[in-house]
Amino acid sequence: MHFDLHHTDKKTKARAGSLHTDHGVIETPIFMPVGTAGTVKGVHQHELNDDIQAQIILGNTYHLYLKPGLEVLEGAGGIHKFNGWNKPILTDSGGYQVYSLSGARKITEEGVKFQSFHDGSYHFFSPERAIDIQRVIGGDIIMAFDECTPYPCDYRYAKKSMHMTHRWLKRCFDQMEKTEPLYGYEQALFPIIQGSTYKDLRLESAEMIASFNGVGNAIGGLSVGEPDEDLYAMTELVCSVLPTEKPRYLMGVGTPINLLECIALGIDMFDCVMPSRNARHGMLFTSEGTINIKNEKWKLDYSPLDPNGTTYVDHTYSKAYLRHLIKSKENLGIQIATIHNLGFYLALVKEARRRILDGTFSEWKDIQVKKLGQRL
Amino acid sequence: MHFDLHHTDKKTKARAGSLHTDHGVIETPIFMPVGTAGTVKGVHQHELNDDIQAQIILGNTYHLYLKPGLEVLEGAGGIHKFNGWNKPILTDSGGYQVYSLSGARKITEEGVKFQSFHDGSYHFFSPERAIDIQRVIGGDIIMAFDECTPYPCDYRYAKKSMHMTHRWLKRCFDQMEKTEPLYGYEQALFPIIQGSTYKDLRLESAEMIASFNGVGNAIGGLSVGEPDEDLYAMTELVCSVLPTEKPRYLMGVGTPINLLECIALGIDMFDCVMPSRNARHGMLFTSEGTINIKNEKWKLDYSPLDPNGTTYVDHTYSKAYLRHLIKSKENLGIQIATIHNLGFYLALVKEARRRILDGTFSEWKDIQVKKLGQRL
Repeated sequence: MHFDLHHTDKKTKARAGSLHTDHGVIETPIFMPVGTAGTVKGVHQHELNDDIQAQIILGNTYHLYLKPGLEVLEGAGGIHKFNGWNKPILTDSGGYQVYSLSGARKITEEGVKFQSFHDGSYHFFSPERAIDIQRVIGGDIIMAFDECTPYPCDYRYAKKSMHMTHRWLKRCFDQMEKTEPLYGYEQALFPIIQGSTYKDLRLESAEMIASFNGVGNAIGGLSVGEPDEDLYAMTELVCSVLPTEKPRYLMGVGTPINLLECIALGIDMFDCVMPSRNARHGMLFTSEGTINIKNEKWKLDYSPLDPNGTTYVDHTYSKAYLRHLIKSKENLGIQIATIHNLGFYLALVKEARRRILDGTFSEWKDIQVKKLGQRL
Repeated sequence: MHFDLHHTDKKTKARAGSLHTDHGVIETPIFMPVGTAGTVKGVHQHELNDDIQAQIILGNTYHLYLKPGLEVLEGAGGIHKFNGWNKPILTDSGGYQVYSLSGARKITEEGVKFQSFHDGSYHFFSPERAIDIQRVIGGDIIMAFDECTPYPCDYRYAKKSMHMTHRWLKRCFDQMEKTEPLYGYEQALFPIIQGSTYKDLRLESAEMIASFNGVGNAIGGLSVGEPDEDLYAMTELVCSVLPTEKPRYLMGVGTPINLLECIALGIDMFDCVMPSRNARHGMLFTSEGTINIKNEKWKLDYSPLDPNGTTYVDHTYSKAYLRHLIKSKENLGIQIATIHNLGFYLALVKEARRRILDGTFSEWKDIQVKKLGQRL
């Protein structure tokens, strides 16, 4: 796996590149739809490919480990064969869900003991176990097992946690050395910067994780409730330390505006549940701003969902029909809104890339940020 | 609208025909997927057309009247323009849901007062109102407002109710005479036979409704819990009275075996929620029998859903993957199972038609009935 940096914008720090994996090339900047349990909720794999034009999707280790479980995934020959998505897949380490979904959990230097949110059964994840599990799942990009600190976070806790994350990172890379991919294609481990919203910690963490010389580097512990200024400040800070020749993945971010601002700061990869989760509640991201399709104002609006949209649902279905479906809690409404929102996110980063390459990113971004912040 | 009867099977009473509507031709025998609230749950319109190969779908007047409501449907220019399904649509009269969904309801000679199952608001349907509403919805085939008696049903109640249904039928046809289609295409009213499981009542009702000379005739009040023998006996009986040159629609039926047996008795049209509803619970109808995909036996079965299946999902997704999705309550699982089941139903009636036309229906049916009854 390797990354080619094609161009860096002159006015901003935005970058256009290509990440080459054994399941194909990812053109950056890229947004990665979240496919929690081996499925992007409500979306067929051919729709992800043909309509949304996703280039890489996420899987969540916590969810996949619990259901369908490792026996089923290994029997299939890995996640790609299991769900039929033949392009790149990234798996997180499971850490985030262990903290956010499991009520009872105990963190020690060794790892984390937690209860399944399905049935309350006890499980134990360590850095070594997180690598072993991700070997079985079979993502192309796999993530280090870290502690994602909440916001706000006490300085002393953030520092102590970060140092443990760094020790865990060493154990993750050691386990990578000791093990092999199971399915014949390369798996690359991305280390994760922590340090909450503290500049000195973020700098220390960025330097530490960069020293591991991974194929790419990730920024974790942001988009957990902090103000956008902190998100941008921390992102800018760590991008100043991270090597330019490697892709930078900002985890769990964000709104369309967050994406554009962070692309301008030098981020190459994003993931977020927002486009798919908000779709399920009838919130659409469009080229002219956001729409709450449940609002009365769309009741008799028979115009297409998004005349500038890039997916067929934008032109096939009307706002009035989608409003009816979402208000009637019909699955088809969720399906339409999800395809629309993910298609919009993918089209946005594709256009950002084009603008970076032709030198018009900065001006375009400023106009977009104003438009995308509107509520229609 | 007119019906061409092409061929009647020599050994059975199975028929192959074509029903011509302003939204296209329906080749019979046909199964009509149920699109309750203007959507076949979880299925895109292009999937209905291209993958499932539906030729006509149903809409439920009760649901559409409550949500999105007549203002929205009329503003769109009718149901086809609202949901983007450009082939024929049949709407029921709302009667069935008024009885089955609305707790508080009062039946009088004038009509039925009922409460919305959404918000408890009061509404009134009469034969005239049911026609007016179906004019606004805009189905190609619209149904008479009747009382669907439950099973079992006291003889005196069944008789009294049937006579009221006959008086209501007269009012429905009178209202059809007084009104015009709103959107420029023809709407045909199908009258409905009632009479519970009583032979004399069914005969009387069949003769009565046939005398109205509708474009087609329907059989209601079956598939409400009676044994299959009663379903078949009543169907056979009324088919002996109904005119041969008009299509016969058996409402709310049924399993794949029910379809084949009733095709053999001379039925041309079916609708049922079973393939879509059972799909949501992980029950698949396949060419070799039924599958409960939640069963442990499919956990590590990576073979395609149905190697003989006619839809792409049958070959794209494995049993193990669908099992995981259904057990994890993922919408994609419901979507896949629904496309599979509806595709199977449509392929079954298509093959029945082919067999009727080439004279091999009877033998084929006997083999199918044995296979389709198996639990895999």
